[in-house]
Amino acid sequence: MGAEEQVLAANAKFYHAFAARDADAMAAVWAQRAPVACIHPGWHALRGRDAVLASWRAILGGPGSPPITCIDAAAHVLGDVAFVICIERIPAVELVATNCFVREDDEWKMVHHHASGMARAPAEPEPDEPDSGSGLLH
Amino acid sequence: MGAEEQVLAANAKFYHAFAARDADAMAAVWAQRAPVACIHPGWHALRGRDAVLASWRAILGGPGSPPITCIDAAAHVLGDVAFVICIERIPAVELVATNCFVREDDEWKMVHHHASGMARAPAEPEPDEPDSGSGLLH
Repeated sequence: MGAEEQVLAANAKFYHAFAARDADAMAAVWAQRAPVACIHPGWHALRGRDAVLASWRAILGGPGSPPITCIDAAAHVLGDVAFVICIERIPAVELVATNCFVREDDEWKMVHHHASGMARAPAEPEPDEPDSGSGLLH
Repeated sequence: MGAEEQVLAANAKFYHAFAARDADAMAAVWAQRAPVACIHPGWHALRGRDAVLASWRAILGGPGSPPITCIDAAAHVLGDVAFVICIERIPAVELVATNCFVREDDEWKMVHHHASGMARAPAEPEPDEPDSGSGLLH
């Protein structure tokens, strides 16, 4: 299995743990030694394994944890680090996510997750009007 | 200058180019060879240098390009790749951003930018209620 497939498999493990509400599997997804961070939708950044895993335990154990699927995942491998961009499909809403991974003990482990809402459904890039949907922000 | 300072300097260059509406400086910030991507707030992912730089030319040349400053930048260096998490302050709103960099020809170049809104102002993590503000999403 090439690096890109390995990274996409690690990304899939993250969403499996999420969908299954499996806090132990979620903990196993995240890097042990590399510093980690996480930006949940609409939330400020959490830094450090303890804070990040505590947030996941709360989310996975809470009543609001949604069914989630990941689609359109694409991996960008840069040596022993990679990032994946994908769409998170939750009933009635789609989010876009950046997931960063590092190779740790020959396994790809998550070091950062950033998910956020999209103002409109994903579509082909439109270079003539790329700021549509971004409103006044940028 | 250590790698962390170098990465933060590259991150600062990005925000200087943004604030100055300098499309050439913005183009120089981004990697030439590594595949790049960009997620503007509320927008789907743009992939590839042409699409990403076209989006920045449109944003920087448009009337809606806001004054922007970057605060609270923290770099996570993972060998020749790094990511920065920071707050983007725009009048009346704060965004949170993930900026990924790769060392290319001995210079740190941006390979990915993901910015999104925050439902509330940044604060200390609250592990007991980390999903506050994330609503129904996660």
